[in-house]
Amino acid sequence: MGAADPVPPPDLDDALVREVLEEYGELTRRHLRDVLPRGDPASYLYDLLGEYPKRGGKLMRPSLCLATARAFGASPEKAIASAVSIELLHNALLIHDDIEDASDERRGSPTLHAQYGMPLALNAGDALSLLCLRPLKSNYTTLGPSLALRIFEETERTAWETAEGQALELGWRRDNRADLDDEDYLVMVLKKTCWLATIHPMRVGALIGARHAAPLDPLIRLGFFFGAAFQIQDDLLNLQGGAAYGKETNGDLLEGKRTLMVIHALREAQAEPRRRLLRYLGLPRPEREDHETEWISSLLTRTGSLEHARQVAKGLAGAALYEFEQIFGHLDDSRDLRFIRAMITWAQSRAH
Amino acid sequence: MGAADPVPPPDLDDALVREVLEEYGELTRRHLRDVLPRGDPASYLYDLLGEYPKRGGKLMRPSLCLATARAFGASPEKAIASAVSIELLHNALLIHDDIEDASDERRGSPTLHAQYGMPLALNAGDALSLLCLRPLKSNYTTLGPSLALRIFEETERTAWETAEGQALELGWRRDNRADLDDEDYLVMVLKKTCWLATIHPMRVGALIGARHAAPLDPLIRLGFFFGAAFQIQDDLLNLQGGAAYGKETNGDLLEGKRTLMVIHALREAQAEPRRRLLRYLGLPRPEREDHETEWISSLLTRTGSLEHARQVAKGLAGAALYEFEQIFGHLDDSRDLRFIRAMITWAQSRAH
Repeated sequence: MGAADPVPPPDLDDALVREVLEEYGELTRRHLRDVLPRGDPASYLYDLLGEYPKRGGKLMRPSLCLATARAFGASPEKAIASAVSIELLHNALLIHDDIEDASDERRGSPTLHAQYGMPLALNAGDALSLLCLRPLKSNYTTLGPSLALRIFEETERTAWETAEGQALELGWRRDNRADLDDEDYLVMVLKKTCWLATIHPMRVGALIGARHAAPLDPLIRLGFFFGAAFQIQDDLLNLQGGAAYGKETNGDLLEGKRTLMVIHALREAQAEPRRRLLRYLGLPRPEREDHETEWISSLLTRTGSLEHARQVAKGLAGAALYEFEQIFGHLDDSRDLRFIRAMITWAQSRAH
Repeated sequence: MGAADPVPPPDLDDALVREVLEEYGELTRRHLRDVLPRGDPASYLYDLLGEYPKRGGKLMRPSLCLATARAFGASPEKAIASAVSIELLHNALLIHDDIEDASDERRGSPTLHAQYGMPLALNAGDALSLLCLRPLKSNYTTLGPSLALRIFEETERTAWETAEGQALELGWRRDNRADLDDEDYLVMVLKKTCWLATIHPMRVGALIGARHAAPLDPLIRLGFFFGAAFQIQDDLLNLQGGAAYGKETNGDLLEGKRTLMVIHALREAQAEPRRRLLRYLGLPRPEREDHETEWISSLLTRTGSLEHARQVAKGLAGAALYEFEQIFGHLDDSRDLRFIRAMITWAQSRAH
């Protein structure tokens, strides 16, 4: 799309995002169901594997993979196995994240460990992350050994980046770190969120669509700006809560997470409220009282931290749109290209 | 070895086991150190990855793999990458097992979650299980793509069997199951222990040594008898404890595990002690009192459960020796063959 093309109004963008997420999401869910094994022990393992996938989710990751592959000229059949693998890995990591964060809710229901007990949930997370390798095997026949091996290695790298990012977030919390700045946050989010949410789906899609010929490094930049905008909006929505969000309101505060808003408030608040915020973040979760959580939440507004985060997310989305034009601008216009572009705007403006 | 061959006295067998475990263990440790990555975040991730490997362990699994490969004619260089992968997977699973079991000690020191906190330990287990795939990549050049892919699939199957076995053990405990018999126990141990401890190392070794030509199914039977004898002896040693054991004395009782002894006692005890045992097993761990643990431990002796377990282990080791002759009897005698044979006897007679 050149600079002279009319930019579609946002409501049309939102409708496109909804439409494609629904179509590719349904395709992914159908194939995912076929990959989920049945067997014994059902109530101790196999029932658990399907629980999070069954609850829905936006299926943003597999949809981005399918759309990128298609934008580069591949049919969805070539990319669906990789898309399913991405969604399985995402669900596996959610199970372990929820244990690590001691979260209560996921997709509007109790977390897996709340439902089945921590030990069985942890074990199911291990099995599900193993299962994500299975669909990748069919790539050997549909895409050939070289591309299949490459996608396998991309998956391994992504899981590794995610583990590094998760380690940062968990370590900062354990040590109640107060010495972090926006750059620390963005490095953490690049690893914890962006690799799996945006970079990996688009890289794998590009590999399948352009068969090694697409430039993959720029997709790290695009995915970083895009994914970070998505994560900041996610953190902002967490402070709002609401039924559509599917997780506890203020869950991030209750879990002591270092979001961009918290880091900003630690930087901007006066000495006394800063001490109170840091004390709150360092408490064991059960000792965080509701009225104190409310007070922290209002502090984040007073220090301008919410507004700061909104501005950073907007800036990141803008940078992502610029990168998008550099990478995809020369391709023929298509619904898939318009979807990816619309997703970038949606990521930092969405209401859930 | 034919039936007429003199069977070496047990102390010579023990010396051979020690000698080969030391030699192959050192080889594995040296290569494992090269695979363990360094990087940031060190204190939140990379330091944790090396912690369990650094503490030692018997390195039985990689040694069995190297010995089997060599017995079939391969050099250790061909098998070392797979041996390292096996040891990494074992260490990764130990981290998660220790969290699931709420264990306090591993290899004579605090468990990883006791040392670094549960969230970082869980995440490090994820990273370590990912790392076990890396050495397998070098198999593509040293063994060729077909064998490399096959070993990768064997690894996947083994991890899957382990997850099923772990699910059984954890589920039985969560539901405080009293309706189990010896066969249930043996199926659970086949999956939880034998696949990774004996079946997989020998199958991979045979694949490398005989390049697809060795019969792999009989190795499941051999590995089952051998590994189950090893696990029962492990459970018996847990009741004895002691510094060389490296875990808490009576840790299995404190964790409510369904060992062969516990299952036997539930079957053999009179109504009143049976009720008391079941009540004990159903308590949350912190509510299990020391004097009650002692009483349960002595009950297991009074019901003949220890003796029963010893007999079953002996029978299994005997069956394993029979299978060993069927599978390996036609090969030329070698130190590696004698080592595997000696390991079978050692598995159910070892003192730690």
